Amino acid sequence: MVRADGRSDDALREVRITRGYQDWPAGSVLVEFGRTRVLCAASVTEGVPKWRSGSGLGWVTAEYAMLPSATHTRSDRESVKGRIGGRTHEISRLIGRSLRACIDLAALGENTIVIDCDVIQADGGTRTAAITGGYVALADAVTYLRAAGRLNDPQPLSCSVSAVSVGVVDGRVRLDLPYAEDSRAEVDMNVVATDGGTLVEVQGTGEGATFARSTLDRMLDVALAGCAELARLQAEALAGPYPGTLPEGAR
Amino acid sequence: MVRADGRSDDALREVRITRGYQDWPAGSVLVEFGRTRVLCAASVTEGVPKWRSGSGLGWVTAEYAMLPSATHTRSDRESVKGRIGGRTHEISRLIGRSLRACIDLAALGENTIVIDCDVIQADGGTRTAAITGGYVALADAVTYLRAAGRLNDPQPLSCSVSAVSVGVVDGRVRLDLPYAEDSRAEVDMNVVATDGGTLVEVQGTGEGATFARSTLDRMLDVALAGCAELARLQAEALAGPYPGTLPEGAR
Amino acid sequence: MVRADGRSDDALREVRITRGYQDWPAGSVLVEFGRTRVLCAASVTEGVPKWRSGSGLGWVTAEYAMLPSATHTRSDRESVKGRIGGRTHEISRLIGRSLRACIDLAALGENTIVIDCDVIQADGGTRTAAITGGYVALADAVTYLRAAGRLNDPQPLSCSVSAVSVGVVDGRVRLDLPYAEDSRAEVDMNVVATDGGTLVEVQGTGEGATFARSTLDRMLDVALAGCAELARLQAEALAGPYPGTLPEGAR
Amino acid sequence: MVRADGRSDDALREVRITRGYQDWPAGSVLVEFGRTRVLCAASVTEGVPKWRSGSGLGWVTAEYAMLPSATHTRSDRESVKGRIGGRTHEISRLIGRSLRACIDLAALGENTIVIDCDVIQADGGTRTAAITGGYVALADAVTYLRAAGRLNDPQPLSCSVSAVSVGVVDGRVRLDLPYAEDSRAEVDMNVVATDGGTLVEVQGTGEGATFARSTLDRMLDVALAGCAELARLQAEALAGPYPGTLPEGAR
Amino acid sequence: MVRADGRSDDALREVRITRGYQDWPAGSVLVEFGRTRVLCAASVTEGVPKWRSGSGLGWVTAEYAMLPSATHTRSDRESVKGRIGGRTHEISRLIGRSLRACIDLAALGENTIVIDCDVIQADGGTRTAAITGGYVALADAVTYLRAAGRLNDPQPLSCSVSAVSVGVVDGRVRLDLPYAEDSRAEVDMNVVATDGGTLVEVQGTGEGATFARSTLDRMLDVALAGCAELARLQAEALAGPYPGTLPEGAR
Amino acid sequence: MVRADGRSDDALREVRITRGYQDWPAGSVLVEFGRTRVLCAASVTEGVPKWRSGSGLGWVTAEYAMLPSATHTRSDRESVKGRIGGRTHEISRLIGRSLRACIDLAALGENTIVIDCDVIQADGGTRTAAITGGYVALADAVTYLRAAGRLNDPQPLSCSVSAVSVGVVDGRVRLDLPYAEDSRAEVDMNVVATDGGTLVEVQGTGEGATFARSTLDRMLDVALAGCAELARLQAEALAGPYPGTLPEGAR
Repeated sequence: MVRADGRSDDALREVRITRGYQDWPAGSVLVEFGRTRVLCAASVTEGVPKWRSGSGLGWVTAEYAMLPSATHTRSDRESVKGRIGGRTHEISRLIGRSLRACIDLAALGENTIVIDCDVIQADGGTRTAAITGGYVALADAVTYLRAAGRLNDPQPLSCSVSAVSVGVVDGRVRLDLPYAEDSRAEVDMNVVATDGGTLVEVQGTGEGATFARSTLDRMLDVALAGCAELARLQAEALAGPYPGTLPEGAR
Repeated sequence: MVRADGRSDDALREVRITRGYQDWPAGSVLVEFGRTRVLCAASVTEGVPKWRSGSGLGWVTAEYAMLPSATHTRSDRESVKGRIGGRTHEISRLIGRSLRACIDLAALGENTIVIDCDVIQADGGTRTAAITGGYVALADAVTYLRAAGRLNDPQPLSCSVSAVSVGVVDGRVRLDLPYAEDSRAEVDMNVVATDGGTLVEVQGTGEGATFARSTLDRMLDVALAGCAELARLQAEALAGPYPGTLPEGAR
Repeated sequence: MVRADGRSDDALREVRITRGYQDWPAGSVLVEFGRTRVLCAASVTEGVPKWRSGSGLGWVTAEYAMLPSATHTRSDRESVKGRIGGRTHEISRLIGRSLRACIDLAALGENTIVIDCDVIQADGGTRTAAITGGYVALADAVTYLRAAGRLNDPQPLSCSVSAVSVGVVDGRVRLDLPYAEDSRAEVDMNVVATDGGTLVEVQGTGEGATFARSTLDRMLDVALAGCAELARLQAEALAGPYPGTLPEGAR
Repeated sequence: MVRADGRSDDALREVRITRGYQDWPAGSVLVEFGRTRVLCAASVTEGVPKWRSGSGLGWVTAEYAMLPSATHTRSDRESVKGRIGGRTHEISRLIGRSLRACIDLAALGENTIVIDCDVIQADGGTRTAAITGGYVALADAVTYLRAAGRLNDPQPLSCSVSAVSVGVVDGRVRLDLPYAEDSRAEVDMNVVATDGGTLVEVQGTGEGATFARSTLDRMLDVALAGCAELARLQAEALAGPYPGTLPEGAR
Repeated sequence: MVRADGRSDDALREVRITRGYQDWPAGSVLVEFGRTRVLCAASVTEGVPKWRSGSGLGWVTAEYAMLPSATHTRSDRESVKGRIGGRTHEISRLIGRSLRACIDLAALGENTIVIDCDVIQADGGTRTAAITGGYVALADAVTYLRAAGRLNDPQPLSCSVSAVSVGVVDGRVRLDLPYAEDSRAEVDMNVVATDGGTLVEVQGTGEGATFARSTLDRMLDVALAGCAELARLQAEALAGPYPGTLPEGAR
Repeated sequence: MVRADGRSDDALREVRITRGYQDWPAGSVLVEFGRTRVLCAASVTEGVPKWRSGSGLGWVTAEYAMLPSATHTRSDRESVKGRIGGRTHEISRLIGRSLRACIDLAALGENTIVIDCDVIQADGGTRTAAITGGYVALADAVTYLRAAGRLNDPQPLSCSVSAVSVGVVDGRVRLDLPYAEDSRAEVDMNVVATDGGTLVEVQGTGEGATFARSTLDRMLDVALAGCAELARLQAEALAGPYPGTLPEGAR
């Protein structure tokens, strides 16, 4: 019962993290999990939304979207439909929540960072790729703000955050499902974790089936090992210099 | 460190399930978890959405909404704003997915059951109350369809489904959080389970904090015990006769 | 030619007014005209809409909506459709206008009272039930504001307001039409009146038929008698103490 | 206490009805009540809306709108705002209902007539002008359909319909209020009537005031006399030949 | 190969410009190119949009719309559809851009002029008629503002602007196409020019065909001659006195 | 007066055309004009929109959009705003019209090709890059359909289409403007042309200035030379083999 791409059940697909993919945003990362490709851009603006203004706290939020051409069959554009679908909303909220878990908003000061996660090509696991790449873009945006002297505290990031999918396919617990596996999975779970091994978010769903507590436990084991590997790849990618131009007079 | 309402950490609030709350829908249940009150109505229509038509399969979906007057401070009406918020979308999808886990859509035949979950009063745990009450309304709707001879198979329900919230508040794992606890919880989790003790959905979130794997395990223990108690209360409520009028010529 | 429920032509259905139905709004009333049930909640906020700000005058407005499960056949949710229908708009405006007729907005001071009228179950006459129940919720909200010392003048209400439907069914003028009568009425009229017997609003419509001036006169006689009876029931309901908790330090 | 334009209290403004104002619709009428100018166009299409299809009955509906430049101060365009306001909805429904009162939809056959009432200039009484002019456009559209042999019965119109406003201004009952009177009226009523003197619709509203039954009676007297005069003017306008080109092979 | 209306290839249709068509806007012009009739109203308000505020510069913008009854077959109302179509957007932007070319926004001062172009009847060339009539309405609005002493400089208009369509029909270059020609044109071009003969905007499109550079050159010759004639007609129309009432105390 | 990037006035930026950028659409091209990068994907579906169904003709349409992170300052997402802006509409229509000029829709048969043009990075000339890249994606989609045996005629493309911007900057006519030049251009023109040197579309606009006929002539000369060069680059890119997998049993 080998996987179509030859991977072992608990192996990640090939993961590539390319920083500096675009020229204008403070952080811009193309993240690839196999054929899944997500462009994660972190844009910074001074000030915070009105409901937060004057609090001294910063804000981090995310918007997830899919190019119409990213899916096997072209999907309609949400801007043309005039409304954002439930799935899009749900994923945007998940990414924002996950990335806020690693940043001290008081240290960020009254700045807003928007993480745009646009799926260039979808082959399963787009939301977990978005969180994983989004963290790297966020880290670059923080570097930019530090250089500009706009942070209240030079190190607002308390940990790194990555995410991976895990599921039960053909009765086996498998890591990082591509679309062909995901679409027939009996159970589907997304796990968001820190480089310290603690959990940020766990979302597990039986798809037309229910699952035992022991299955959940096994899925968590596999996913946490996957997140540890992703944290290592993130650190590796961030070891290089800032890929763009830091603000003039940067400290 | 006692709870404001005197409950022990692993106790549910007082739960009341009132069937036949409205006269027109095939199932109509008012469910109360303490001060949280949700009206769950199951309406049946012949036929299924176009994308499913001709498949022989039925469809179950849910729509969740909050009355403006249900919250401590009045909230704006989504119909007036002209768009449904992300939270509403997310909860509607969760309820629908959870209730589809207990029903065999082939046995249901090409009928659609819409579960409307309208929150009359919100005091934490509205989504889990909605799932718990929604199951009872769904069971009544199934009874109605069976009496009308409209099912492909007389018993499409394979199990019952209930849900409860659990969280970490003041460093303690607590069951069924009212708003006052929920709003300051460090970790917040919703667990959906069957009367057989298997899991349907698990959603755990650190709110501005991350959590250890061992905390997750403890939360699952407490939540599964809570769901078992809810399953007992659902069965008790459904032991009485169908509260409305069954179709004429019912078998 | 007796009515289906045995009432005489000029009799109201059984009317029940339950104050304190919800815990959070300043006024919360469940009003029932037979099987028609409307939840009327009066929420108070400091300040007034921008276009009125600085005028020293308060504002009272209403929003009417129907639960999808309230009607014989489930109706679509306006929040999902993304727009409010003409009927909903029209009724919301009627309720707001009617309730503003009994309150001195200068005495109210720069406070806003929103009356949410959510139909739990519809069986004809939902808009008139909403006005009748809405007045009682408004009176409770005024009591709350008075206790909080937030009124410019302790008694802003100059009269009470109630409403009832009247129509021509099977050639007979009948009061307070349930759905079965309403749907085949030749003429349909809603009358809003004060406890002093003066008129606030009159809306009469021939449905696929026109009607003589003498019929209009007869309908007004019957409706005004019905409103007088409703005013008595409102006064009776308001004779009891305020059903919730008044603000601390209330005078 | 003379009116600003010198009229007696029960006199109409100068009313002009111009048929054939546009070239393409089957009926196109510019109606003027003093400075109020409304373009009423009746467009015919084969078939009826889906919910009515196969019934053998036709359909008449109306859409009311205001040019942004029609009001003293420019008003925002509803197409730009992306939603139709409550007032617009309410008036469109009133016009449609009023005009359906004079036509036998079975005789019309499965044709749809849309009456577009676009206000070119507003100076009070736009909805009543729209009904009055809309009837004349409807009559021309019926003539067109008759000539095309598309009616089930050659004379579907059973009466004519006109409308006028009446109100209490400075304590006096006055007919056909221009904006300057309307904006300070204590009571405002719109009356729709047939040329036979029967009523189609009555809508009376106290604006920040209530009114006695006897005032209502007096307003009805004055309005019915106004409608009789309008019916005469409509008949006069329709006495001329059809202003456009009838379908070829017209009978 | 004569044109259906007997015109020569390079002749305009009969053009009529009626100033003072409505009473309330500062400028109101009905412009007719044959059967095409567009109502152009220029409304002035103090202040400018927020993004421009404090700049000392004024703002001129345009909104184009079509009455549903203006077209051969009734078209749906964009306010009812809830969104503005691409064509409407495009034309509104073209008109605004064209009219801003003739006015010095610093001289205008912080005033906003909105030019509403509502098509009463469409027979080809509505956008070019709108620009031509819109200029005259704009000139009247400027006169109004000058009289009110609200301009920074008494003569903000540097030139006049007019527009005309030109196309290739049946292989011949023709000016000012009515709908019957426009709908079968191989090439369609709109040219906006000043009374000085310079160009403001050129938009040429092959409709299912491409065109030679020499054809483009010939179309420009014909269109510029047409614009010169239109500039003459605009000047003639503006030679008369201001058609409405200038502000009191006007200089 | 040299350009910031050292180019001569009539030179293009470096242009790169990468076919096969994504795996799922039938054509997927990344086109780059200097720093401007647009992803052009051509998706094919069987059948045509309803209004065209049964005509035997195919359909080609385009949708243009900008990633929020593509611009110097992050721009809001149109899906979140709930409506598409005028500029987006206008450009989508231009691209669709331009690409339809090179394809015989009868030869295409009842297939629809949607060209999605998503701007990854914007630095001026995004619409002309989209047309130039869109043609190459379209050509690949045609190859795909031919291989699948789904065309009525094997060669529906009659020519190639490319586009370039040209403008007057600092008084000089310049080709292919980057953002820094575009934003201060006095005249801005987009020219769409075929490889045969004929014109498809010409759109020239004075930005706060008008321009002489002779300037227009000079701009056309420069733009047509640029388009000829782009046609050569398109042919070069298309000389390679189809970059994806052709349908099985391809002829």
